[in-house]
Amino acid sequence: MNIAIDAAGGEYAPHEIVKGAVKAAQDYNVNITLVGRKDILYVQASRYLKKLEMTIVDASQVIEDDESPIEAVQSKPDSSIAVGINLVRAGEASAFVSAGNTGAVLYSALANLGRIEGIERPAIGSIISVNAASPVLLIDSGANANCRPAHLVQFAHLGAIYTREVLGIQSPRIALLSNGEEETKGNRLTRETHSLLKRTDLNFVGNVEGHAIVRGIADVIVTDGFTGNIVLKTLEALGDTFLKLRNVGQVFAGSHRMESGHQVFETGLGSLIKRIDYRESGGACLLGVNGDVIIAHGRSQAKAIRNAIGLAKQSVDHDVCQMIREQTATGSFQATNSAKAETEE
Amino acid sequence: MNIAIDAAGGEYAPHEIVKGAVKAAQDYNVNITLVGRKDILYVQASRYLKKLEMTIVDASQVIEDDESPIEAVQSKPDSSIAVGINLVRAGEASAFVSAGNTGAVLYSALANLGRIEGIERPAIGSIISVNAASPVLLIDSGANANCRPAHLVQFAHLGAIYTREVLGIQSPRIALLSNGEEETKGNRLTRETHSLLKRTDLNFVGNVEGHAIVRGIADVIVTDGFTGNIVLKTLEALGDTFLKLRNVGQVFAGSHRMESGHQVFETGLGSLIKRIDYRESGGACLLGVNGDVIIAHGRSQAKAIRNAIGLAKQSVDHDVCQMIREQTATGSFQATNSAKAETEE
Repeated sequence: MNIAIDAAGGEYAPHEIVKGAVKAAQDYNVNITLVGRKDILYVQASRYLKKLEMTIVDASQVIEDDESPIEAVQSKPDSSIAVGINLVRAGEASAFVSAGNTGAVLYSALANLGRIEGIERPAIGSIISVNAASPVLLIDSGANANCRPAHLVQFAHLGAIYTREVLGIQSPRIALLSNGEEETKGNRLTRETHSLLKRTDLNFVGNVEGHAIVRGIADVIVTDGFTGNIVLKTLEALGDTFLKLRNVGQVFAGSHRMESGHQVFETGLGSLIKRIDYRESGGACLLGVNGDVIIAHGRSQAKAIRNAIGLAKQSVDHDVCQMIREQTATGSFQATNSAKAETEE
Repeated sequence: MNIAIDAAGGEYAPHEIVKGAVKAAQDYNVNITLVGRKDILYVQASRYLKKLEMTIVDASQVIEDDESPIEAVQSKPDSSIAVGINLVRAGEASAFVSAGNTGAVLYSALANLGRIEGIERPAIGSIISVNAASPVLLIDSGANANCRPAHLVQFAHLGAIYTREVLGIQSPRIALLSNGEEETKGNRLTRETHSLLKRTDLNFVGNVEGHAIVRGIADVIVTDGFTGNIVLKTLEALGDTFLKLRNVGQVFAGSHRMESGHQVFETGLGSLIKRIDYRESGGACLLGVNGDVIIAHGRSQAKAIRNAIGLAKQSVDHDVCQMIREQTATGSFQATNSAKAETEE
């Protein structure tokens, strides 16, 4: 398996990206293709190149974080993002990981890999592990700021496939993020989505509030990309706050190993801070495009990059794209289509 | 000053409510009116009644948390919520504090106190103090799940008045919660609101992401009540998680006193957990109705009730309702009105 990584994207590129990629190559036994300026990357990676199977593919341009995604992708055909996505399209890489401009990765994936047939809006699924024993997939966590109910129903299906195939949860509990648990609570979008989700064959457990992220009551939390992004950033902000307290020595932050059923996980503040710290945690999956694309945090350091590559490997191993294709083809997303007709003008 | 308190509302009623009310009466030198079943409250409060000026007003009915607000308020005219709100309307209490059914408090306040002239949608403003040196007012944090841009502009004005009058911030920095800082980021609601806010005389600092809640970059964060509620609950969830870790002794949670300018505040995890723990923190203000109404968390214990009464006293002391009346009368909300015409069909 060969995973392409955007060595020019993110705040700590290229150094931390290369470091994380090397670690991933060792830990996961995957081949890595670094995408970026060959001259720079060659120097960075040279000491590893003999020992590890690592390829460098030249990309002369860089899309900065503050650039407008569509314009940047169109005007920089040799950007590390465009080159990386095209490696996936050409079958030369099994997946692409980037900590660069998220909008540009999204647009490039949509334009060059395309949506899986039947999927209207690819979405970003982020695994949140504040509750170590019961992580949740928050989908959409940022791709689509404006959504219709039918889109949210598709996010629910995408999330169900991912958690079933990759996390091994047989009948994932799908919940809808709202401002109250009652069916009547919510804004127009969630109220309509609720009534549509009830008619699917998904294991829909109803509305949940923000608490659900830690309470182990759902495996997939469905929301629009605007709300999902705000939830993620709020969690990050608190994570930052706790991290600062730890760093100035005001918090003793140890970890403990615990067992629950067959799982072993770490508890304690040290491990909790790790789990909500984007510098360490993995990344998010773009679901619904023809190819495995992982979006890492812009401030990812080596460990986060290593974990994001691990996430990419899992998606490839479990053939998530193919699973989505099969499910849309068999009409499992059908409720969405009938739903669509009802809710759109 | 006489503050009425719903002694029948909330998970820990009446015991913790009475306890908190007694503490508030001592700490803030205010008179308290307990509203609820007289026989029960008399027993609870009897040992304090001689020492403190405390009145009991009988309300024979209780609105439960799972009742539909409008139906419950209409079918239970002698509920503690209805009776308490009517004390404010009759001028017999300066403010009303309730940890009961939030929807019922909202509806009862709207129906019986009415909106301040010129205010379309009263909103809930919650003070979030994760960053002790720079608390933020999140408005709307739950009253209005569906909003139009003109409503959010009014929330901004309400928040500006509150933070100026009560928190003493001369020119409060008003920010709009979005999924990116750029003006072009956001959903339809926030994009339109952004362009309206720019045209007001408010100190509008632009869009902020979820991080802003801790970063001290804004004094007022404006959002719709759906998103605001989810942000609050997400913070609560993390607070709960940390609290549990502290309780099982996995975290050393001390506090330290620090000075910044003229302010003295506590730092350290112990104090942080306190600040995000709704069992201890205050409550939220309903802004835009003709009367001071404080909504406390349904799980408030004595300390939270005491703090909520403190919040009520501050609102009364600073005459927040009158300030809002004066500002709407002088046309300070004018941008809203012109804005309204543009954005509504």
